[in-house]
Amino acid sequence: MKLNGTSLIGLRNGDKAGKPFYAINPDTTEKLDPPYYAATSAQVKQAADLSSSAFDIYSRKSGKEKGAFLRQIADNIEDLGDDLVDRATRETGLPEARIILESGRTTGQLRLFAELIEEGSWVEARIEHAMPDRQPVPKPDLRMMMRPLGPVAVFCSSNFPIAFSVAGGDTASALAGGNTVIVKGHHAHPGTAELIGRAITEAVRKSGMPEGTFSLLYGPGQEVGISLVRNSKIKAVGFTGSRSGGLSLWNAATSRPEPIPVYAEMSSINPVFILPGALPGEGARIAEGLMASVTLGVGQFCTNPGIVVLEKNKASENFMGHFAELMKQCLPGCMLTGDIHAAYKKGVAEKMGHQDVKTIAYQETDKKSGGYRSGIAVFHSDAKSFLKRPELSKEIFGPSTHLITYQTHRELLNIAKGLEGQLTATVHGTSSDFEANADLIAILEQKAGRLIINGFPTGVEVCHAMVHGGPYPATTDGRSTSVGTYSIYRFTRPVSYQGFPDSRLPDELKEANSLGIWRMVDGKPTRDQS
Amino acid sequence: MKLNGTSLIGLRNGDKAGKPFYAINPDTTEKLDPPYYAATSAQVKQAADLSSSAFDIYSRKSGKEKGAFLRQIADNIEDLGDDLVDRATRETGLPEARIILESGRTTGQLRLFAELIEEGSWVEARIEHAMPDRQPVPKPDLRMMMRPLGPVAVFCSSNFPIAFSVAGGDTASALAGGNTVIVKGHHAHPGTAELIGRAITEAVRKSGMPEGTFSLLYGPGQEVGISLVRNSKIKAVGFTGSRSGGLSLWNAATSRPEPIPVYAEMSSINPVFILPGALPGEGARIAEGLMASVTLGVGQFCTNPGIVVLEKNKASENFMGHFAELMKQCLPGCMLTGDIHAAYKKGVAEKMGHQDVKTIAYQETDKKSGGYRSGIAVFHSDAKSFLKRPELSKEIFGPSTHLITYQTHRELLNIAKGLEGQLTATVHGTSSDFEANADLIAILEQKAGRLIINGFPTGVEVCHAMVHGGPYPATTDGRSTSVGTYSIYRFTRPVSYQGFPDSRLPDELKEANSLGIWRMVDGKPTRDQS
Repeated sequence: MKLNGTSLIGLRNGDKAGKPFYAINPDTTEKLDPPYYAATSAQVKQAADLSSSAFDIYSRKSGKEKGAFLRQIADNIEDLGDDLVDRATRETGLPEARIILESGRTTGQLRLFAELIEEGSWVEARIEHAMPDRQPVPKPDLRMMMRPLGPVAVFCSSNFPIAFSVAGGDTASALAGGNTVIVKGHHAHPGTAELIGRAITEAVRKSGMPEGTFSLLYGPGQEVGISLVRNSKIKAVGFTGSRSGGLSLWNAATSRPEPIPVYAEMSSINPVFILPGALPGEGARIAEGLMASVTLGVGQFCTNPGIVVLEKNKASENFMGHFAELMKQCLPGCMLTGDIHAAYKKGVAEKMGHQDVKTIAYQETDKKSGGYRSGIAVFHSDAKSFLKRPELSKEIFGPSTHLITYQTHRELLNIAKGLEGQLTATVHGTSSDFEANADLIAILEQKAGRLIINGFPTGVEVCHAMVHGGPYPATTDGRSTSVGTYSIYRFTRPVSYQGFPDSRLPDELKEANSLGIWRMVDGKPTRDQS
Repeated sequence: MKLNGTSLIGLRNGDKAGKPFYAINPDTTEKLDPPYYAATSAQVKQAADLSSSAFDIYSRKSGKEKGAFLRQIADNIEDLGDDLVDRATRETGLPEARIILESGRTTGQLRLFAELIEEGSWVEARIEHAMPDRQPVPKPDLRMMMRPLGPVAVFCSSNFPIAFSVAGGDTASALAGGNTVIVKGHHAHPGTAELIGRAITEAVRKSGMPEGTFSLLYGPGQEVGISLVRNSKIKAVGFTGSRSGGLSLWNAATSRPEPIPVYAEMSSINPVFILPGALPGEGARIAEGLMASVTLGVGQFCTNPGIVVLEKNKASENFMGHFAELMKQCLPGCMLTGDIHAAYKKGVAEKMGHQDVKTIAYQETDKKSGGYRSGIAVFHSDAKSFLKRPELSKEIFGPSTHLITYQTHRELLNIAKGLEGQLTATVHGTSSDFEANADLIAILEQKAGRLIINGFPTGVEVCHAMVHGGPYPATTDGRSTSVGTYSIYRFTRPVSYQGFPDSRLPDELKEANSLGIWRMVDGKPTRDQS
């Protein structure tokens, strides 16, 4: 497919105006054609206006209609075939296998949401029948269900060019919930964004959805994104990226005349606690798993384990030595962008120069070998220093981790208590470890969106029970998840219908329950139809 | 019961320090004993610290334990008997019957939440079993449920001294969800707050809940409230009151190093649309219902109908005349506080002096008759003026409403489109009116938390299907409700447990389902036990 290099405003191409930017192949640092043009402020407004008019229609489509649309998007993405793999690998430096896996995850996710909304019970329908004779006052007929918020602005991430980008989790959950979507593409992979964007636009056309159900905007800096978030037609924001990027959107959204919800997933060091009982039997397995988790995708995962906490003793000393050796055997990998590469290099250099940090494994990170290649880095500090130095808990985005050894249970608990909000927290141990450290697990539950026992945080399963979220600053809204079917609730709100004649109610709330969905009727769950 | 005049910090009384303030009887403008003392900043910190330690224990109590605790609070409130009625009527000027009704609503609400958490399915448990042999990667065991956020700051409203105050909706939903609570009492009814606060404290003691599960703080200005919201131990805020009050808490909460959710219910003009078909047959009934709704509780309801929109024609002219006559027959009523009385008087005077407003019914509002007595006011404007003058949509808190007559369907829709977010929107009409105005109802659904057909917005049913909330500025978070069982989700977040041994899981997620709750297991709802 030939790439055009412009935004997609509803069903039309944006203009080629202003100074263009180019994708860079991080493996070679070469510019990739075509040039991409930022959306003008008039185009941002036009996309928002279209999105708002489309919302009036799209928000009333049935679950079956929206489901068919999501399935069409998935089919169209699959039809991109090698064009997508070729462009995405060149724009991101990620290997072919990863792009194929990530595409499969993305289409699988779209079809999972399709299934959810075709079935329909997700709307949480609740019905309370009238009691006209109740004393002292009659009870009215009241019915409630979840309804969409309005046009949603979705920001592509740098590290998941497909699964957390144009047709990623936020787009899928927003469209599934009945919202229209405007995506702001990531400047590092505009071609991948255009391919997926056109797949969605084609699905809009083919499924007969209104123009404006989807738009895609480009803009290399923050200007387009901020003006999108400030547009009064936009009713919610989804973002995955850096803390500074997330906070600037959050500030823009909360300082609007009408503040709107922002789901920004920003940063997490995903602590891993290895309790004493785990090492004798499982040390080698844990070291290998940890190595794989730290280096997966050149460490560019939101769930990358940034600190590993373990007791100071002979077994942990052996473990650390073994882990350091494993890490040294990894091959340096190509990072996604020059900025990420530079930030990683800076973060590693800062820790290496820190008086309270010992570097126990290190590979050089530079551009000599061609492209934005980064080596691993493993650090070690004792708990006392770590607890004193907040800068040591700062996220380093890349294939690096920091081992912390504690000497007392109090130190262990203090490390847990001092943590900021996290996407994940992991504990390795035996039954008796967990028994003896129930207090640790209780603290971690208050800190993270997902707790893992004897596993690793990378690998975020797309399913009904996943929470990929967590207290601030892991996200700006810990009451939500960006992965899995529960994320459909981030772009919805409950609406009550009082005294409505049956014919004016949405189908989900009509007395007959022709959709056969689960509903809470007068306090009892039922899917009875009449 | 003898009132002490101090904050309740966990199980202890606060100090009597600094300059005290007094409740004022709005019916006589007399000071009521005893003097009340504001919490010091040390006491705010102490309450927050206690609340945080108590949370570690209280958040792990079972649904049955928390349910018994809520029931004990309800019993203790009932035991207050005449003491509560006597004090509350003197502090608020509200009639005895209203206080008795409101107390019943409050205890009923506590028991409804008790029932909800004793049954237990509200936690939305989701279980996905492991698939260790899945290709290309194994699927881990993942389980999810809702968990509490932490200590919650709850602000008492002026207009519901019991149902939206110390043991009101936010306190009930927060405690039911497993959160601890610190209430900031309203300066207008400190004695009512103390009575209810002691009823809760006694329940904490009797039910064996940890000290700090509940505290009550006084402070006549904003200082205590703001320092509470800024305290890092506080994890969420519930508020019902003015827009300026809500926004100052919202600003404090969102500018913290760790921003927290704020559910501030602030202002709403609750538009009522009377479609042409309604008037011939139902005009008299609607006029009476509207009169009752506008004047209920001297108009001091969040759901008070502030504008009434109807077609300009002979029938509506008759309706307006009849409605104005009914309103003039109402007796002036005593308002809750001098501030509310003054604001109402000012708001009414402004509209009366507005060039585009005609006053069609008016009673004088002043203090001559003793106490903060307010008369009714009914205004009329045409749609053209209303659409041009945003100041005419400003909420006037009190027994006043504004009739707007339109001449074209486009004017009608423009009025709806121009509305800010609302708690409620009401439509009166016949089947053919609704058919012909489906576009109006669709717009209103995007504007309000609750839609009402052929009814009135006042009277907020406490049940499963109620949404008392709505888009900004009706509230700062339209994804929630402050009334009904769905409000339990405002103070909770989902947490995932991956790879947990059965014994370490919360009971709600253990394989056996010994609680017998509804769960989504591998995508299917079931309450099977094993």
